[in-house]
Amino acid sequence: MSNTKLPYKREELYRQGPQRSFSGPALGEVAFPLGGIGTGNVSLGGRGQLRDWEIFNRPGKGVTLPYTFFSIWAQAEGGQPIARVLEARRPPPYARADGLASNELAGLPRLDGCTFTGAYPFAQIAFNDKKLPLEVELAAFNPMVPLDAELSGLPVAIFTWKLHNPGTTSVDATLAFSLANLTGFDGVTTIDRNASTKMLGKCLNSWVQEDRLAGIAMTTQKYAPDHPSFGSLAVATPWNDLTYTLRWKRAGWFDAIQSFWDDFADGQLRDDPTPELSPDGKVDFGTLGLRVKLAPGASVELPIILSWHMPNLTNTWNAGWRGLEGMVGKPVGNYYTTKFKDAWAAAAYAVRELPRLEAATRRFHDTLFESTLPAHVLDAASSQMSIIRTTTGLRTSDGKFHGFEGCNDNIGCCPMNCTHVWNYEQSLAYLYPALERTMRDTDFAINTRDDGDMAFRTVLPLEPVVLWDFKPAADGQMGSVMKVYREWLLCGDTKWLRKLWPEVKRALEYAWRGPNGNLSAAWDPDGDGVMEGEQHNTYDIEFYGPNTMVGSLYLGALRAAEELARAVGENSSADEYRARYERGRARLDAELWNGEYYIQREPPIDQIVEVDHGSQPWHSAALVAGESELRYQYGQGCLSDQLLGAWFGAVVGLDDLLPAERVRAALDAIFRYNWRADLGDHANVQRTYALNDEAGLLLCSWPHGQRPTLPFPYSDEVWTGIEYQVAAHLIYAGLVDEGLTIVRGLRDRHDGERRNPWNEFECGNHYARAMASWSLLLALSGFHYSAPASQIAFAPLVNADNFRSFFSTGSGWGSFAQQTQGATLTATLELRAGDLTLQRIGLRPAATPTSVHVTLGGDTLAAQIEPDGSGVVVILDQAVVLREGALIEIALA
Amino acid sequence: MSNTKLPYKREELYRQGPQRSFSGPALGEVAFPLGGIGTGNVSLGGRGQLRDWEIFNRPGKGVTLPYTFFSIWAQAEGGQPIARVLEARRPPPYARADGLASNELAGLPRLDGCTFTGAYPFAQIAFNDKKLPLEVELAAFNPMVPLDAELSGLPVAIFTWKLHNPGTTSVDATLAFSLANLTGFDGVTTIDRNASTKMLGKCLNSWVQEDRLAGIAMTTQKYAPDHPSFGSLAVATPWNDLTYTLRWKRAGWFDAIQSFWDDFADGQLRDDPTPELSPDGKVDFGTLGLRVKLAPGASVELPIILSWHMPNLTNTWNAGWRGLEGMVGKPVGNYYTTKFKDAWAAAAYAVRELPRLEAATRRFHDTLFESTLPAHVLDAASSQMSIIRTTTGLRTSDGKFHGFEGCNDNIGCCPMNCTHVWNYEQSLAYLYPALERTMRDTDFAINTRDDGDMAFRTVLPLEPVVLWDFKPAADGQMGSVMKVYREWLLCGDTKWLRKLWPEVKRALEYAWRGPNGNLSAAWDPDGDGVMEGEQHNTYDIEFYGPNTMVGSLYLGALRAAEELARAVGENSSADEYRARYERGRARLDAELWNGEYYIQREPPIDQIVEVDHGSQPWHSAALVAGESELRYQYGQGCLSDQLLGAWFGAVVGLDDLLPAERVRAALDAIFRYNWRADLGDHANVQRTYALNDEAGLLLCSWPHGQRPTLPFPYSDEVWTGIEYQVAAHLIYAGLVDEGLTIVRGLRDRHDGERRNPWNEFECGNHYARAMASWSLLLALSGFHYSAPASQIAFAPLVNADNFRSFFSTGSGWGSFAQQTQGATLTATLELRAGDLTLQRIGLRPAATPTSVHVTLGGDTLAAQIEPDGSGVVVILDQAVVLREGALIEIALA
Repeated sequence: MSNTKLPYKREELYRQGPQRSFSGPALGEVAFPLGGIGTGNVSLGGRGQLRDWEIFNRPGKGVTLPYTFFSIWAQAEGGQPIARVLEARRPPPYARADGLASNELAGLPRLDGCTFTGAYPFAQIAFNDKKLPLEVELAAFNPMVPLDAELSGLPVAIFTWKLHNPGTTSVDATLAFSLANLTGFDGVTTIDRNASTKMLGKCLNSWVQEDRLAGIAMTTQKYAPDHPSFGSLAVATPWNDLTYTLRWKRAGWFDAIQSFWDDFADGQLRDDPTPELSPDGKVDFGTLGLRVKLAPGASVELPIILSWHMPNLTNTWNAGWRGLEGMVGKPVGNYYTTKFKDAWAAAAYAVRELPRLEAATRRFHDTLFESTLPAHVLDAASSQMSIIRTTTGLRTSDGKFHGFEGCNDNIGCCPMNCTHVWNYEQSLAYLYPALERTMRDTDFAINTRDDGDMAFRTVLPLEPVVLWDFKPAADGQMGSVMKVYREWLLCGDTKWLRKLWPEVKRALEYAWRGPNGNLSAAWDPDGDGVMEGEQHNTYDIEFYGPNTMVGSLYLGALRAAEELARAVGENSSADEYRARYERGRARLDAELWNGEYYIQREPPIDQIVEVDHGSQPWHSAALVAGESELRYQYGQGCLSDQLLGAWFGAVVGLDDLLPAERVRAALDAIFRYNWRADLGDHANVQRTYALNDEAGLLLCSWPHGQRPTLPFPYSDEVWTGIEYQVAAHLIYAGLVDEGLTIVRGLRDRHDGERRNPWNEFECGNHYARAMASWSLLLALSGFHYSAPASQIAFAPLVNADNFRSFFSTGSGWGSFAQQTQGATLTATLELRAGDLTLQRIGLRPAATPTSVHVTLGGDTLAAQIEPDGSGVVVILDQAVVLREGALIEIALA
Repeated sequence: MSNTKLPYKREELYRQGPQRSFSGPALGEVAFPLGGIGTGNVSLGGRGQLRDWEIFNRPGKGVTLPYTFFSIWAQAEGGQPIARVLEARRPPPYARADGLASNELAGLPRLDGCTFTGAYPFAQIAFNDKKLPLEVELAAFNPMVPLDAELSGLPVAIFTWKLHNPGTTSVDATLAFSLANLTGFDGVTTIDRNASTKMLGKCLNSWVQEDRLAGIAMTTQKYAPDHPSFGSLAVATPWNDLTYTLRWKRAGWFDAIQSFWDDFADGQLRDDPTPELSPDGKVDFGTLGLRVKLAPGASVELPIILSWHMPNLTNTWNAGWRGLEGMVGKPVGNYYTTKFKDAWAAAAYAVRELPRLEAATRRFHDTLFESTLPAHVLDAASSQMSIIRTTTGLRTSDGKFHGFEGCNDNIGCCPMNCTHVWNYEQSLAYLYPALERTMRDTDFAINTRDDGDMAFRTVLPLEPVVLWDFKPAADGQMGSVMKVYREWLLCGDTKWLRKLWPEVKRALEYAWRGPNGNLSAAWDPDGDGVMEGEQHNTYDIEFYGPNTMVGSLYLGALRAAEELARAVGENSSADEYRARYERGRARLDAELWNGEYYIQREPPIDQIVEVDHGSQPWHSAALVAGESELRYQYGQGCLSDQLLGAWFGAVVGLDDLLPAERVRAALDAIFRYNWRADLGDHANVQRTYALNDEAGLLLCSWPHGQRPTLPFPYSDEVWTGIEYQVAAHLIYAGLVDEGLTIVRGLRDRHDGERRNPWNEFECGNHYARAMASWSLLLALSGFHYSAPASQIAFAPLVNADNFRSFFSTGSGWGSFAQQTQGATLTATLELRAGDLTLQRIGLRPAATPTSVHVTLGGDTLAAQIEPDGSGVVVILDQAVVLREGALIEIALA
């Protein structure tokens, strides 16, 4: 146990129960993304405003749609009518060179305040206002169910407004949603104050009435259907007492919004269904109103569905990338738009299927949040799994998933499928493993060259193949081999593995073969399982000499490849990889352990071999003429990532990549030296992700001096992705308090005032590395799964006496629970979706059990127990196939 | 007296004494401009950071200079050294797609907090920090003295750091200023995270040591001396214990700043004086450090002067202005750069003259702030006089002053010298009347066409003359005539008047002659002193029919012209103007008074004549085919500007433009109907300048209904310039509480958290209209002055028993005070700069005096008294010429 005094009370680390709420200043940064996989999002702001419109095939932080907002009109019987924008008042500052713009409606009355609660994928806002005769709440979500990428990939934002009349007289109300027809918008150009730009106009708003649903469909005739800016929008509802305006008055100045707001003064709009094309350059605004009369004490739920359909995703992100300029503008296409003909079709689908979509999503949500895991861990895991469904992820028309590292405000950042950043991510892997496998397909079937050199970024479109011309990333490449192992465990699809195996093998063996067989440029020229060569890595520089950061990933890749080789029947390769692994492990441990943690051994300057980096421009090199010290290394430092491969090993059950006691000691040292409860005295001239009184885990420190003059870039920074991997690894190693402490400090930084809880950024928003947070859930539940072995295992590391957690495999997901009473452990596994073939169930009772009793839906199953490490494995005499709803119960005594 | 209950306590309206301080969240928007007339500024942020670099010949809100900051190193004897950025910690939010950038140094330790106090032109920050062994304060200013445009036009920011050692051991300290050599910067292009861009580089930092001063001079060899981007920077100090780095390490990543911060760890820099040109595209950073050893209890002041020299101001602001595209890029030139050969010369001058510059500025500051006027009035008057010295004002190389309306974040807005916006401004007129006269020269000698049509915007450069091709502004044109009268009163230069008189006359008579004699398009076709025609005005639309907003300015212009005509000996014209004025006044009063206030009488639609608006594109017209109601009028509304001309009349002593009792009643109605203590229920779809719980004066309201369907744009907005003119007019009319209430609400909106106290924006930052605030000081002191009559007058409207206020004339300024004791009034007038010829001194004793005793420097002057309106005028038997320091004392009993 670390000797660092932890700054949090036990309650702060272990509290279960509801998620945080946000109000007042903490609403400022809140932006809760609403959107499906590969569809883009619009975010629900803390005050109920819609912000960050990212539905136009690109990120759009700060992009707002002019005059697009919810509003309410209400009149208690005998009272004065009141109209309000359905948002809490905006807080200061109010400074803008020419005033807050009309199209943000800053001057219209809003509600007094609100409280925002988010438990992804559901957000809720409870509003308060002294004057409105109704109580108002909003629930918003986009359907999400693990394993079901179709249901989780709908281009909709679903809003359910709950109105309650707490008074003693009836209240007439109209709840309205106004939407700018911004079809044709490129997602980034500043829209002028009158909301008309040259790129817009010729737009058509149509009234659509279908069986049990109605609404407004919006499209444009300014662009051909294959133009990147072409698309459609829709707003629909199943409610049937409606009023609407297809387009506000087309006039100058502020007249359009004035005409709407005046029209809204009696809660009744114009209801003229005649469509009419807008002039070129002019945007129309449509409003859909839902009318209701609420008796005293009555409540109602009013659903409004916003949908979008922007089919022509093109490569915008390679602008400025040397050699890839020609890719810009090439069509890539969206998957979601192949499923619906337009936004109206998507909206209509969502309205019709709303009960099913909501129930399925609620089932997932409840399974995740009914857990006994600490609330802030669920916060970390759930909030960051949203990254799968932000603009950081694409699902292209061929169905494949691709990921940026993250997103700059208006463009995806560091395209695409970066092997080293995506090393850390576990959310997509465990929630949508089939999509994750498409990334492996791209990694190996596309990006792996004949000599095993993996282009560590993907160039889209995939056909014809263009490979990114840069040296491979040692950490990313080794991690990719481990990922294949993870994917295979989750899906058990050995046929899939066989297909990729030749490239996987080449990618691994590249370590000791080098580029085109050039040994002098190889990572591990002597093939002893330790990389000494130039190792480009996730810090955007190169390490030289043995280090466990890349080294542990190499060991993990060797072990993973050993297992994979055996699965495809290549036992001699397996033996060879094992042997290299053994040698490497021994040497790393012998040479790099400094008594507290693992260091880097830099080679003498005159032995440095710099590798050609292809056609790409590159950052400053480590080797500078006339300097006696290599730049950008960590040397004697205590690197937070020093056990990266071992963490990944713990996730996938390759537990012994380095000696367990040293791993534990090194983790302890990382926490002790690199985690700061208060960064007020930390001097960091690099980028800043944590500061002042905030807590955070530094990427590196030099507790015993010998800090390099110019240490590797980012060394003084704090990255959530690394914090998560270290936290999870601490938990795996039994240092649970320390792990939870890191997570607590991290999530406290994302308190809604400082940062958005649903956006952990690094080199870009919604940074993929933050999806390491899913490994917290894996670690705390001690979850392992092997489809090939029909084995599942749990070893709860928190609340083991009364534990419950979500779990997922490649074929089904559900809830695992265990209770202990005296020497008896009762475990239940309930499959809530999909199916699951099981024969072996790992558990970790407090004492060695002597008996086992297993039932499935009340029927007893014959089973044995065997010891397994620190636990036992329950072996069913016959494998069973669990179906949705199946409940298996195991009693160990 | 208004029947509206005022929301402020008497203390809140009348408190005298120190100006507000800002701390915590109120520091967020604070940006105190440091710069001279026509030099641009850098602003001191609330936390001590330098922000909004506007020295590169254009506005630059949000522009920061990379790695440019003050820092301190300190070591108490026997203690650990400590290094800090000399800023208070930055508050949330901390969100940025790729982290807070290295070049903002967000990750370096800062001080715990600070308190900011500003009394323009001086700013002060008191820092607090638990760990630093020193107490630190900063005083910053740019020299400013009324009437002295040279002294007030220096391109410098003067920082005096006050260090105090409160401890019991001595402390070694180094106070450092680091500055990026951004010569060559265009002032707007985003500087990338490594602070190198293609536009920069080839920069040279040189060490300069002169007699009693030293520092770093920075320039560039990338641009020729006549290139718009050419320029120089300098930092200098008279301190002699110095350490410095001419350039940080030139390296990759974050190495430059890392090398500096590590070098700074012992408080001693490299001190290598060898200059070396930086590579193209690479910026050098230099640091000047001032070393001091502070004994226990000792204090020291360390002055650091930053200066700049960007000679090649060119027209950037006409981009996008139809017909003026050809003006873009034309050289205009700065006046200040004709006075110094480069930034070093300016810095050296400021260092050498520092005591004089500071003393003179302090004298002005003290004269202004020692007043018994309410503190928030001094705040309003002083903070907004800063607009003279922001990028809203230019002083071109010919010495003329020009003004934008205001400034967008990166470009001047609505060029240039807009006659109607500059109607409201009184600060430049009273503080730098000679500069103000250059605007009249431009208005009349350049912009007035043969038929009297004044181009109401100025096109720069002035030679060869290009006139803005748009219809004239009726309010601006009439106001310009009144301004000539004001300027003539202040300077008494009848020769100057004679030179402009023919154009002034033409501009006035254009009202009834029309464009090229076209009566149907004339404002006042029947010549009866009332405008019925199309009146383009400051709301960017046209009013039709009689209204007192433009109408009162017309009356004021007629009266002013009457006086001017008599001054130049054209008595028949004078009589004619007088006659038109009498008729117009009678008719406006008869036709527009609704019992509470003056309304607009719109003509029938079929009588509307729309006037050609020249080559410019224009906003939506008022007359729309098929509509039965004119758009964009105010009709029965209560317009805050309805007495605009009467306010201007009160300022310049033309008091009876409309009947006094009706003026007072209308002002009361404006306050009652248009001022809101809380705007939370106000529905405004236009731009927003005041909202939520803020107070503000609406431009218009319709208290008795009949609000037009589409009222004039801006009608629902709140503009500080109009608030000031109404507040001052309320004060002139004796409704002092109401006037002070408006000002209090307005300044409370500028509380540092909501908005910057030193930036009242409207259509642009530092909006010229806000300089109406100076009329508060004129009104409360009842100040009038006529150089031609050698007459000055005071009639304090607040604290009349013990009054003191700043005053200024065209030739000198000083302090006026009066005390009353029983029936005795003792008045003193002290001239603190310039000279002043006086024969007549107006005063307003409580009772009619029977005796007068006047002394000048102790010597009795023979004098008589005569009644004059509600006061008396003291008439010296012989005019006296006061010189700087002269004190005249008058006792009335």
